[in-house]
Amino acid sequence: MGVTPEQQREIDEQRGDFQATRRSVVSALEEILYQALPVLDHGFVRVIDYMGDDGAVVQAARVSYGKGTRKVREDAGLIDYLMRHRHSTPFEMCEIKYHVKLPIFVARQWIRHRTANVNEYSARYSILDNEFYVPAPEHLAAQSASNRQGRGEVLAPEESARVLDMLREDAARSHAHYEALLNEGTDSNSTDPDRTGLARELARMNLSLNFYTQWYWKIDLHNLLHFLSLRADAHAQYEIRVYANVMLDTVRRWVPLTSEAFAKHRLGGFHLSESAVAVVRTLLAGKTVEQADSGLSKREWRELMEALGREE
Amino acid sequence: MGVTPEQQREIDEQRGDFQATRRSVVSALEEILYQALPVLDHGFVRVIDYMGDDGAVVQAARVSYGKGTRKVREDAGLIDYLMRHRHSTPFEMCEIKYHVKLPIFVARQWIRHRTANVNEYSARYSILDNEFYVPAPEHLAAQSASNRQGRGEVLAPEESARVLDMLREDAARSHAHYEALLNEGTDSNSTDPDRTGLARELARMNLSLNFYTQWYWKIDLHNLLHFLSLRADAHAQYEIRVYANVMLDTVRRWVPLTSEAFAKHRLGGFHLSESAVAVVRTLLAGKTVEQADSGLSKREWRELMEALGREE
Amino acid sequence: MGVTPEQQREIDEQRGDFQATRRSVVSALEEILYQALPVLDHGFVRVIDYMGDDGAVVQAARVSYGKGTRKVREDAGLIDYLMRHRHSTPFEMCEIKYHVKLPIFVARQWIRHRTANVNEYSARYSILDNEFYVPAPEHLAAQSASNRQGRGEVLAPEESARVLDMLREDAARSHAHYEALLNEGTDSNSTDPDRTGLARELARMNLSLNFYTQWYWKIDLHNLLHFLSLRADAHAQYEIRVYANVMLDTVRRWVPLTSEAFAKHRLGGFHLSESAVAVVRTLLAGKTVEQADSGLSKREWRELMEALGREE
Amino acid sequence: MGVTPEQQREIDEQRGDFQATRRSVVSALEEILYQALPVLDHGFVRVIDYMGDDGAVVQAARVSYGKGTRKVREDAGLIDYLMRHRHSTPFEMCEIKYHVKLPIFVARQWIRHRTANVNEYSARYSILDNEFYVPAPEHLAAQSASNRQGRGEVLAPEESARVLDMLREDAARSHAHYEALLNEGTDSNSTDPDRTGLARELARMNLSLNFYTQWYWKIDLHNLLHFLSLRADAHAQYEIRVYANVMLDTVRRWVPLTSEAFAKHRLGGFHLSESAVAVVRTLLAGKTVEQADSGLSKREWRELMEALGREE
Repeated sequence: MGVTPEQQREIDEQRGDFQATRRSVVSALEEILYQALPVLDHGFVRVIDYMGDDGAVVQAARVSYGKGTRKVREDAGLIDYLMRHRHSTPFEMCEIKYHVKLPIFVARQWIRHRTANVNEYSARYSILDNEFYVPAPEHLAAQSASNRQGRGEVLAPEESARVLDMLREDAARSHAHYEALLNEGTDSNSTDPDRTGLARELARMNLSLNFYTQWYWKIDLHNLLHFLSLRADAHAQYEIRVYANVMLDTVRRWVPLTSEAFAKHRLGGFHLSESAVAVVRTLLAGKTVEQADSGLSKREWRELMEALGREE
Repeated sequence: MGVTPEQQREIDEQRGDFQATRRSVVSALEEILYQALPVLDHGFVRVIDYMGDDGAVVQAARVSYGKGTRKVREDAGLIDYLMRHRHSTPFEMCEIKYHVKLPIFVARQWIRHRTANVNEYSARYSILDNEFYVPAPEHLAAQSASNRQGRGEVLAPEESARVLDMLREDAARSHAHYEALLNEGTDSNSTDPDRTGLARELARMNLSLNFYTQWYWKIDLHNLLHFLSLRADAHAQYEIRVYANVMLDTVRRWVPLTSEAFAKHRLGGFHLSESAVAVVRTLLAGKTVEQADSGLSKREWRELMEALGREE
Repeated sequence: MGVTPEQQREIDEQRGDFQATRRSVVSALEEILYQALPVLDHGFVRVIDYMGDDGAVVQAARVSYGKGTRKVREDAGLIDYLMRHRHSTPFEMCEIKYHVKLPIFVARQWIRHRTANVNEYSARYSILDNEFYVPAPEHLAAQSASNRQGRGEVLAPEESARVLDMLREDAARSHAHYEALLNEGTDSNSTDPDRTGLARELARMNLSLNFYTQWYWKIDLHNLLHFLSLRADAHAQYEIRVYANVMLDTVRRWVPLTSEAFAKHRLGGFHLSESAVAVVRTLLAGKTVEQADSGLSKREWRELMEALGREE
Repeated sequence: MGVTPEQQREIDEQRGDFQATRRSVVSALEEILYQALPVLDHGFVRVIDYMGDDGAVVQAARVSYGKGTRKVREDAGLIDYLMRHRHSTPFEMCEIKYHVKLPIFVARQWIRHRTANVNEYSARYSILDNEFYVPAPEHLAAQSASNRQGRGEVLAPEESARVLDMLREDAARSHAHYEALLNEGTDSNSTDPDRTGLARELARMNLSLNFYTQWYWKIDLHNLLHFLSLRADAHAQYEIRVYANVMLDTVRRWVPLTSEAFAKHRLGGFHLSESAVAVVRTLLAGKTVEQADSGLSKREWRELMEALGREE
């Protein structure tokens, strides 16, 4: 589990502390504030802080003096309109901060999104724990045959076992040697008084990419939704998608109206290219059209037919 | 005054509403939350929302599980260290949102800072009020003789009077014609039933740059301090500097430790170039050095001597 | 016209100067490099510099050592794929720089896009010319009845004439008084030796929003396309749309493959929400569906029917 | 060496190709364009493209129609002024693109700078080569005693040997197992026809942080200088500093005037806090002051005394 009893105690203590504020409060989000929501084998997502709510989106769109909100129905309509027309600035008026524990190879994908603020645990300064990600057998899969960056079929049990052994052994050795290089007398290694240890900023290079790191990550609602639309997508790697899904749940608690508009227009929507529009028009006119004549690539054609619910 | 009685009522209502939160609360900032702090003749700055406090800076620097803060003295030391070494990311973990009413020519300078989120009142959609900035006589000054972008001596009373008359008359006519173009039956103009009005997005072009606009402006603490270091500076135009100064006060309430470190290292500091370091070394060695031999321009020399408290 | 003979001479001189480079060169863009492409009555767009071409997009996507390009057909396919799947980072590898002359009210919309680099002509430092935008009669329109931020019907001739007179007179007076305030002996005003002039940073507030300003504006291809998708759109204000259209032409010269993919997937595409997908599926199944039962707002319904080519 | 013969051939081919352009050309930079400048044991920095030169900075600051440059001396003066007063936007008008090959742990520090455009080699899509960083013995050092994130004394020879063996063996095994997991028949592993391979996006997690990755990295001059001021600094980790130093050389070739101003005001400058200003004033007045009474921390005091050339 990703949190030690000592850390859990700190979390509980902070959760027990209430104060009065004039700011907007979202009770559904406060319910889980600071809690470690588990992801993968040792990771977590914790909501640490937030600013604003659905009302703040409405208030900014109206540049109003008070709360700016009217009836829930009108607010929902305005938020839907803003989402549909990609008027993104009112959604930038809400902000959220997460504490995330995640494998380094996931962190490397995540950090490509440059619109967030980040403070990562420093392995120049501190020592990384002996915690590394090992996939569950049902997530060990072969390279996809159809998609050049993705997974295909799940491995057979005996193959899984071999892979898991290899991953576990290599990571365990990797960390044992890391500690030996440091020679600072950590968990499994006592200090060797006859050796100087290696600087932390150097020793860390011996760790593999499945070791866990952690960071504080703060982002506005518009950019968070953009991140989630890419990372909660079926094309995203499973190991980052599970984080995105947990975060989607926190967004539903935080800004239910925005969340609904997002599901409707982004997650559940479908984008037609100019040629795809032409295909749909032809079909609606009762005529037939083949992929070869459609101006669409095979992949685009297949995705369009799926979206339209036509098996071909 | 920048706020109507109706708007003041909305503000008061929002101020009267308290709720319990698990988040950090800064009571000195809550005291003035939502209040319109007056700036110039019709402008204001209102703090609308905030996230985090000095503790959030410390917490992020330590990537901690709980509050992350220790003794005030240790926290102050860490914050001072971060500020001095320009470790900016922990300061990005705090966020603040302002509602600002300001003349358009000030807004045009302000918006150059691209690291904030902005929602401005739309003159395509709404009608701008008849409120424009007219400087107080003591701020009417001639072009600076020494500095090619700045002000010099204050105008003589009779000149001031002429200038103010001209500014007032032109702005008043500008707005009256704006209303006539709109033909929507606003304050001073009744609708002329025989004329079609001009679209708002077009009519606004007749307004001058001293008319007031307003926006919601949200920014993280690091970028806010950068903005303030430039705009609270003596070289900044007076009309934006007064906004920066009011905002500096709100920062003092919000994050007193950060604010102190900022005053010490940025506002009150002085940057020496390589040549300036050499000058100081020479002087400390008891030798003399002249501007001509210093490698410094006249202006750089003058500013250095001022900073060192040497009249020359 | 937006360019003086002296400026044109400088432009011609620069255009006459060729040098050898190892970098990629796009001759269709070099043809118009530095030329002032006219927009509105006094404005222009000039391409000042560029970096990269379609090949640079392909090269970055492949992280290759050489040019990275293969056959035109393969490159076009890859670029189409990247555009369709919103893989935006390879498009960020191309950069372009424009010199733009534009009315201030257009500049205020434009600057909301924060992902560009900007250097604007400073009215604190320099004096603005007596050049202001006056719409052509066919662009003077009433407020739209259906769309709360837009234009409707064109004004009748005699109304147009009134509007144009008012705009012209106010702007002319505005600039005459600006020069009088400055008292620096510009075009139409000789210096009055008995008066001190007003500082430039103050005098400018008397100018109206239709005066022209100019700036250098530099942006990467991905963010440029995002800007163009919003500003070349039918919902954008006419006065910024004409700039976007001229820039679209420069993009066609610069990166023809990217430009084609952009036209196909963005400009000519249509986004279906979850409910809109359901409507299309129902229609394809040969059933009928009414707006009231569709889950779509009236406006969304109307836009969908238009896109599908169904008159209702 | 970081480049294969095949890659070198591609580079040479591209270097042999010249075309005529109307854009500014910097011949000192063209000399090394596309060449792999070696860094560490397998890494490199290659300048791939650039836009603008010192003249572009001057041109943007003056918002001019032609080249905007005057005499070299005036241009140098203007650039020095802009650098000194932190007028950063004209420096944003130049852009450069690098192709960099670097160890993953270096890439993780580097990517924290969010103001660049990046395309990294994808290990979801491709297979990483068997190339990993092993420090030279003279760069293997113990944790610093005085600085909690840095290196102290170099390791003794026999300790170095042990460390290097461990790093080499672990990385070699790490890659061999990576290939075994992939089972795609790479260099050292032939395909085992009885096993399914593991997806690339999963197998990569077995690699350690000293393996090399590569990316295209594009940034404007202002943000590049900011990056270099942090990463060419003595406090930066050696393994990123060597990249920064090679890049500093490329900047000297590209924009010599800007480079000189940067050296003078940033790299060779020293920032005084308010208390440090007071200390210098006291010393200049011929009085003494001790650290304890100075308001400076021990570390700040020591750095100030060093900067002033006073041994204490």
